[in-house]
Amino acid sequence: MTKDLVLAILKNSQGYISGEKISKSLNISRCAVNKAICALRKDGYIIMSSTNKGYFLQNQSERFNLGEILTLLPLSYAKRIIFLDTIDSTNSFLQKKHPNLEDGTFVIANEQTNGRGRLGRSFDSPKGKGLYISLLLRPDCVGENLTEITCRTAKAVSDAIEKVSGIRPGVKWVNDLMVNRKKICGILTEMSIEGESKTVRNAIIGIGINCNHDKTDFSEGVREFASSLYIESGKRTNMSFLAAEIIKSLDKLRKDFPNNKEEYLSFYRNNCITLGKEIRTIRKGEELTGTAEGIEDDFGLRVRLSDGKNLVINSGEVSVRGTDGYV
Amino acid sequence: MTKDLVLAILKNSQGYISGEKISKSLNISRCAVNKAICALRKDGYIIMSSTNKGYFLQNQSERFNLGEILTLLPLSYAKRIIFLDTIDSTNSFLQKKHPNLEDGTFVIANEQTNGRGRLGRSFDSPKGKGLYISLLLRPDCVGENLTEITCRTAKAVSDAIEKVSGIRPGVKWVNDLMVNRKKICGILTEMSIEGESKTVRNAIIGIGINCNHDKTDFSEGVREFASSLYIESGKRTNMSFLAAEIIKSLDKLRKDFPNNKEEYLSFYRNNCITLGKEIRTIRKGEELTGTAEGIEDDFGLRVRLSDGKNLVINSGEVSVRGTDGYV
Repeated sequence: MTKDLVLAILKNSQGYISGEKISKSLNISRCAVNKAICALRKDGYIIMSSTNKGYFLQNQSERFNLGEILTLLPLSYAKRIIFLDTIDSTNSFLQKKHPNLEDGTFVIANEQTNGRGRLGRSFDSPKGKGLYISLLLRPDCVGENLTEITCRTAKAVSDAIEKVSGIRPGVKWVNDLMVNRKKICGILTEMSIEGESKTVRNAIIGIGINCNHDKTDFSEGVREFASSLYIESGKRTNMSFLAAEIIKSLDKLRKDFPNNKEEYLSFYRNNCITLGKEIRTIRKGEELTGTAEGIEDDFGLRVRLSDGKNLVINSGEVSVRGTDGYV
Repeated sequence: MTKDLVLAILKNSQGYISGEKISKSLNISRCAVNKAICALRKDGYIIMSSTNKGYFLQNQSERFNLGEILTLLPLSYAKRIIFLDTIDSTNSFLQKKHPNLEDGTFVIANEQTNGRGRLGRSFDSPKGKGLYISLLLRPDCVGENLTEITCRTAKAVSDAIEKVSGIRPGVKWVNDLMVNRKKICGILTEMSIEGESKTVRNAIIGIGINCNHDKTDFSEGVREFASSLYIESGKRTNMSFLAAEIIKSLDKLRKDFPNNKEEYLSFYRNNCITLGKEIRTIRKGEELTGTAEGIEDDFGLRVRLSDGKNLVINSGEVSVRGTDGYV
């Protein structure tokens, strides 16, 4: 952690910075600064030192670690970001640890060995290819607000992706992010609710963004439906940049909720690619088809069914009719 | 565990039973039977043995342990009941362990050192006074069914209490069980929900029944609002009996859901003491008062507000007006 903070300070300083200045701004000993410099050098960072001037970090090729991310954020974020090299699942990590973590804690992993998607599906999370990040929220709300939180997340993540890659994804209701009809980001929100009062105890939002995958990085069953920012734009994503933007954007969501609804709602209505499409959903075991016509004020999907009736969907999965079949 | 199974067999056998018969019916070695007999004797059970006839358990004063509970249930329940002498909270235990436990697992504790109630409140759980039991469910349902599950629980627990104590509690919406306007049972349901599809991953139902408390066993702030089966009936509850009935009743609930709704709904409508009363609730920060008029088909509470409008309540806490103030 100290190492990451020192890296952030070195990267953000113009020219040389003295060990004393680093030690003062982090409120740590000179000895701790020295240790951090050694550790960074061991990691391959080239740090010049001069007896009078202090330390200077030479330009580096891009890397993905906590220090690089902190370079792009106020340092006060440091205590709310956990960076792991490998983990089963960032959501599972927060599930286990949340009693001891504060509202607004982020967990990022370089790889997930057991990444999870919706309805018990798995989520491919190879090392260095995607951004795998989860956020712990303790929102002051009841279960009825679940759809709104998941829909707000779609905007928050979409904003960050656009800022870094220039690509604005479309939102397939409820919160799949799509580019050219393929999924580039999966979101899995897991909430703990008190059954009697419906109070939401905590919500864990897990996000997996396909960044630098080639087509062959996807397993066969997935390749047809998934894409990456690299495949769609031809550009590699700097994952530290993307992580920092996602953190800023989700932190805004956390502070906004339940206010600023109009901002999220109007984004959602403008970017929801499900609207106007033929859709299919399962309701009480029955398959229903119809046309998605609008987004309600609570982010429910308003559908005109084949039999002419209207239906508002707030739960379950919705498939959108493509050229052949539903995706 | 073997000890508990052997106890159940001894208690349920007419007269002497041979070690061989015990070993066969549990599919364990004769040596394991001998060890279990020794352990039971160490616990204070008086077991006669005769070379030709086998073992015979002398009548005992009532005790509260897994073996006593299993005596009253099919032995197949053994693998789904965990009995703990002391634990922080039976719900917390299931929260931590549920990935490795099967649907329908029960946890019972002799005492809870950090018993939890709704909205972060604590629940007094002194040793030997109350029954503290939690059930793990993996129901096939979505978040909209939360109210129904909690209301069905009120009936299941109420049935068991009546069977053992003769007292039929009233149900204060949503699922407080009341006798003479005092609470004798608290229920806390904690559910994990997938935010996107609203699928319920698991529900943990925690139940605390005040059985053998004297008035002085309640802490001062609680005494005014809480009572026990002993205070109300003058009779001590055999907690093993009550535990077995609760287990049977909740297991019926588990198998019934989502069917047999009419049985639970009609019970609920007949026993909900909130109906006809003046109530108070908080909605979006605003205090509302009105008269509870009915239970909807989804177990929502239909209220006629002071301004004449109708409102159906599905979340939040509802207070009922007593002689002075709301409880």
